[in-house]
Amino acid sequence: MRGFASDNYAGVHPEVMDAIAAANVEHARSYGEDAVTRRLDERLREEFGPDARGFVVFNGTGANVIAMRALLRPWEGVICAETAHIAVDEAGAPERIAGTKLLTIPTPHGKLTPELCNPRIDRMDDIHAVRPGMISVTNSTELGTVYTVGEVRALADFAHAHGLLLHVDGARLANAAAGLGCGLGDITTGAGVDVFTLGGTKAGLMAAEAVVVTRPELHDGLERIRKQSMQLASKMRFFSAQLEALLSANLWRRTAGHANAMAARLADAVADVPGVDLAHPVEANGVFAVLPPGVAEELQSRWAFYTWDEATRVARWMCSWDTTREDVDAFAADVAETCRAAAGAAA
Amino acid sequence: MRGFASDNYAGVHPEVMDAIAAANVEHARSYGEDAVTRRLDERLREEFGPDARGFVVFNGTGANVIAMRALLRPWEGVICAETAHIAVDEAGAPERIAGTKLLTIPTPHGKLTPELCNPRIDRMDDIHAVRPGMISVTNSTELGTVYTVGEVRALADFAHAHGLLLHVDGARLANAAAGLGCGLGDITTGAGVDVFTLGGTKAGLMAAEAVVVTRPELHDGLERIRKQSMQLASKMRFFSAQLEALLSANLWRRTAGHANAMAARLADAVADVPGVDLAHPVEANGVFAVLPPGVAEELQSRWAFYTWDEATRVARWMCSWDTTREDVDAFAADVAETCRAAAGAAA
Amino acid sequence: MRGFASDNYAGVHPEVMDAIAAANVEHARSYGEDAVTRRLDERLREEFGPDARGFVVFNGTGANVIAMRALLRPWEGVICAETAHIAVDEAGAPERIAGTKLLTIPTPHGKLTPELCNPRIDRMDDIHAVRPGMISVTNSTELGTVYTVGEVRALADFAHAHGLLLHVDGARLANAAAGLGCGLGDITTGAGVDVFTLGGTKAGLMAAEAVVVTRPELHDGLERIRKQSMQLASKMRFFSAQLEALLSANLWRRTAGHANAMAARLADAVADVPGVDLAHPVEANGVFAVLPPGVAEELQSRWAFYTWDEATRVARWMCSWDTTREDVDAFAADVAETCRAAAGAAA
Amino acid sequence: MRGFASDNYAGVHPEVMDAIAAANVEHARSYGEDAVTRRLDERLREEFGPDARGFVVFNGTGANVIAMRALLRPWEGVICAETAHIAVDEAGAPERIAGTKLLTIPTPHGKLTPELCNPRIDRMDDIHAVRPGMISVTNSTELGTVYTVGEVRALADFAHAHGLLLHVDGARLANAAAGLGCGLGDITTGAGVDVFTLGGTKAGLMAAEAVVVTRPELHDGLERIRKQSMQLASKMRFFSAQLEALLSANLWRRTAGHANAMAARLADAVADVPGVDLAHPVEANGVFAVLPPGVAEELQSRWAFYTWDEATRVARWMCSWDTTREDVDAFAADVAETCRAAAGAAA
Repeated sequence: MRGFASDNYAGVHPEVMDAIAAANVEHARSYGEDAVTRRLDERLREEFGPDARGFVVFNGTGANVIAMRALLRPWEGVICAETAHIAVDEAGAPERIAGTKLLTIPTPHGKLTPELCNPRIDRMDDIHAVRPGMISVTNSTELGTVYTVGEVRALADFAHAHGLLLHVDGARLANAAAGLGCGLGDITTGAGVDVFTLGGTKAGLMAAEAVVVTRPELHDGLERIRKQSMQLASKMRFFSAQLEALLSANLWRRTAGHANAMAARLADAVADVPGVDLAHPVEANGVFAVLPPGVAEELQSRWAFYTWDEATRVARWMCSWDTTREDVDAFAADVAETCRAAAGAAA
Repeated sequence: MRGFASDNYAGVHPEVMDAIAAANVEHARSYGEDAVTRRLDERLREEFGPDARGFVVFNGTGANVIAMRALLRPWEGVICAETAHIAVDEAGAPERIAGTKLLTIPTPHGKLTPELCNPRIDRMDDIHAVRPGMISVTNSTELGTVYTVGEVRALADFAHAHGLLLHVDGARLANAAAGLGCGLGDITTGAGVDVFTLGGTKAGLMAAEAVVVTRPELHDGLERIRKQSMQLASKMRFFSAQLEALLSANLWRRTAGHANAMAARLADAVADVPGVDLAHPVEANGVFAVLPPGVAEELQSRWAFYTWDEATRVARWMCSWDTTREDVDAFAADVAETCRAAAGAAA
Repeated sequence: MRGFASDNYAGVHPEVMDAIAAANVEHARSYGEDAVTRRLDERLREEFGPDARGFVVFNGTGANVIAMRALLRPWEGVICAETAHIAVDEAGAPERIAGTKLLTIPTPHGKLTPELCNPRIDRMDDIHAVRPGMISVTNSTELGTVYTVGEVRALADFAHAHGLLLHVDGARLANAAAGLGCGLGDITTGAGVDVFTLGGTKAGLMAAEAVVVTRPELHDGLERIRKQSMQLASKMRFFSAQLEALLSANLWRRTAGHANAMAARLADAVADVPGVDLAHPVEANGVFAVLPPGVAEELQSRWAFYTWDEATRVARWMCSWDTTREDVDAFAADVAETCRAAAGAAA
Repeated sequence: MRGFASDNYAGVHPEVMDAIAAANVEHARSYGEDAVTRRLDERLREEFGPDARGFVVFNGTGANVIAMRALLRPWEGVICAETAHIAVDEAGAPERIAGTKLLTIPTPHGKLTPELCNPRIDRMDDIHAVRPGMISVTNSTELGTVYTVGEVRALADFAHAHGLLLHVDGARLANAAAGLGCGLGDITTGAGVDVFTLGGTKAGLMAAEAVVVTRPELHDGLERIRKQSMQLASKMRFFSAQLEALLSANLWRRTAGHANAMAARLADAVADVPGVDLAHPVEANGVFAVLPPGVAEELQSRWAFYTWDEATRVARWMCSWDTTREDVDAFAADVAETCRAAAGAAA
């Protein structure tokens, strides 16, 4: 059943499959000592600056936990939005595996600002409190919104002014950059980010992300932390090849840009349906819509998607690199029809 | 450079690549709710019994840590050989991530026995001591030897008699079964094993292992532990497909059997070389050879392999699914020639 | 400098010193196998029911962490108030040592209710989320309020209905019971509490608390967890003696009741001071007062106390077993005078 | 029942009780901001050098775990003797709470040497291995032997040459110094030790130890780690007072010296008993004796002591600050008589 449940319901982009196949020749040294990974390292430096260093990992939770384990001292915590993936969708890995307290903040549309973070910058010298050591934002956010370059820069400046690091969970970094029309480096290294996840899986890879550190003094121990965190692939060439493909011929912009465009098309199509309201600005590849009572349940018998919040009747519709215009148009038509029928029944 | 450094220097078997490609159609539910994973679940039950349940993960360290995290209480430890992968090659993940103390035992040829384990079954009721909760063996072992069905059974009986679980690190389970000429189930479920890793990467997969639990009462929480341990693939179909391929048309026996045969061929070829001694019986896909002084260094300028123990001059030569007879014969000839030259120089 | 900074600024009650001295005769078995601890065990059963079992520990953070480590599975978290000591004053020990995610809730006056907890009882079967395993309340609370027997019972019923445990951080349990005029057992075992801290230090002991479990099926492993959590005293008789003293001749009610009475006296004395407002009901031994700008700083040059919230100008004044009427009256007079002066200066 | 089971069966020395009582006046700031703790800080600098800083904790396991948590990076482990308390008697706290792998080494009489440690200094740059970060020795050892100043210095030099720290578990540091006739500082700061436990409980305190760090660059975060490790006493003055007493008027040398003398007396008295052999040199306050079959069991009906090793029939007899000559002489006579009777029965 096609649908809008998640951008990880999509498969692997053909160019990525080709890259994997191309890497499958002869023997190669394991654990990252191979030629493909060396090429990727170079590619990452081009994209994110000469001091950037990437560490390929299997998945997003792994990437986030590694960043915390490597860059926080035992008494430091992470300031993040209440809706952050690390706070609500990683099964407690930040706390149980990284041992990190999350200092959560309610936000409008899933986005932190220096003003919102400010009250958490207290008790810095109080040994009874967890000291903030990092601010973590997700870009694009879990609610389909995007931090601009300026907004990221403001958070980086705020973080650095207080001795904190700025981390970006970039599971959908490509969607953010595509949405802004800028480069991946512009919203990371260029905006003062210290460490981020370069997400690949949701952009059309099979499974590959990278923890990227932008300053050399932060590299220390990261390789060991990755291994200890069970995120070191033995046949790494097949994972590096995926990320290399993502960064080749602008694949990331093509896949993420397409997904964003499909979300915009869907948002446009339902915008005028009576009873439907957008819960958040549609700036990346997700549409969050408030639906009339009963409509989500009816639609879910024909389309895959999640109800994001039962209480407020918000549905989440995610577009992916392989979402088609036909998918969007057929779904939007069904939304409109189902809302109409519901309104009729209610009348 | 081809060689004998590790079975994970080899690439992906073509049948596995085909299976991955075949899985790459349309949308599929993520996190294991897909059709390929359902088929794999069924296949695992056929192979390992109706109560068996497998949990696909990314790598071997992840598989081992998940078994410990899921099946041990906080005050329980693991009895294992001093040479166990969990003890020496997982960067402390068992201790740091699972929190588990390893109760290590020196062994001949990397194999535990009930007699060797027995002294560790003391202080069971002493709250100041770590209580053994699990025995972990690796099959085939890190030293290229294999536990027979009877040897595994004896350890299972011993473990169960003392209230412990028996765990098998099966990163090279296929090599063990192929070496014994039995089925994968015979040396696991059939021999009383409670939980094991079904290794795939070293047998020709890209990256996929499974934690398999053989009794229903042990399943509880394992799915959550896998997620929390950062080992849950979002596009799981591509990992399940690899394991399905491994269990199809006896691929595991073909790849592992071939690697074993190449190791036997190599062992035979060097057996009579003056100055070369086998350090361990060659029962799977690894040859451990004591070399004359200087020989390893000379060979390593032409061939990839690891010196396993500097002090005793033991070299490790691993064969893989794609090792050829030509590889073996050329290398064996070089070993003989280099030893001859070294003997001449020394004379 | 005397004052109202904390109830742990007070010393040890003479009856407790006598009990310690009385325990200091001859040899005694260590780690709790002594006669004093046996007597305490019996005393705890009298107070908290025949199934109750207490585990003596050094301090409150240790007691809370042990309860979490012993009674939660790795994927379970704790619902608590945002203001809970475990959430804000234990330096991240719940996360870093117990690995537990705290599912915090904003509350009026520091008190949870079933209604407030209810939104956290979602995603119980979602493996991506932390599953609530325990509700933790503090009684008396960090804000000087008290849960009644009925309020605790309602939370216990709610917790049990959803398969959760109810935990009480009873660092000031004596203050709660004294405030309610009931027994310690009435607000714990009698109200359905599964596990709680019996606090002693703030009630006049040198340093001793107990983790008390009210149902036999919850005892398993607790002794081992205490040892592993570094909270097992070798010469335990001297800690058990303190708790025995606390439970003897109603010492707890005398010390905590006195502290409560002093807080009430202070609250009464400042209630009518212009510019002073009570931030929370005064139900135990703490007074939280909103002061006019500048008043706290001026008073702190003469009296020890903490500003609880800079932004809202809330001061915290704690009374202890040794706070005297003279202390209270002199301080209240100074508060009044300082407010008057501030008002004059402002006018 | 008096006996020789453990030096923590003894009570609290009267001078320590006096010190506690003397600290029990008026209010004092909590968590170490009190006058007694300030005096102790000064006393520690006098004893251990101007850069030394002590952190008072509750018990020995807590002290050891704090040293590991504060001074090791996540990928570092601890080289120690197989018989070390951290390895066998701390219920896995080093692994589960500190996350630290212990790299254990078999030793004669419980003592490490640079030569014994040397094989563990391998794979320092191998990210798959745990990197040694610390050597930990116990002085006096768990087997009643003592490292001399020169032996400690040799280990410190070895450790520092390889970039490791030297830690001393000084639960019985006073026994070591008293046995050597030197100062506490001579076998710690003076011998190049980086961090150690100053043990008090076994020397006559109620419960108090200190983690002492000898170099300023190692202090960072230790206060926070102590709090997070649940080892921060709120009414700390009563714990600091105990340690101050220990360091006053040479109390440590009097109590530990007496215990050592009693052990020597006991060793002398049983040395010539036929069938009794000393298992280790008697250099501190413990006697380890090999007994004829059945003798330990018979003696244990009248005297408290532990069988240290069933298989080799080694008994452990510990002397404490309050062991009397009469205790020793009566016990030695009983040992002799019981051995005689056993020999007669066997003949």
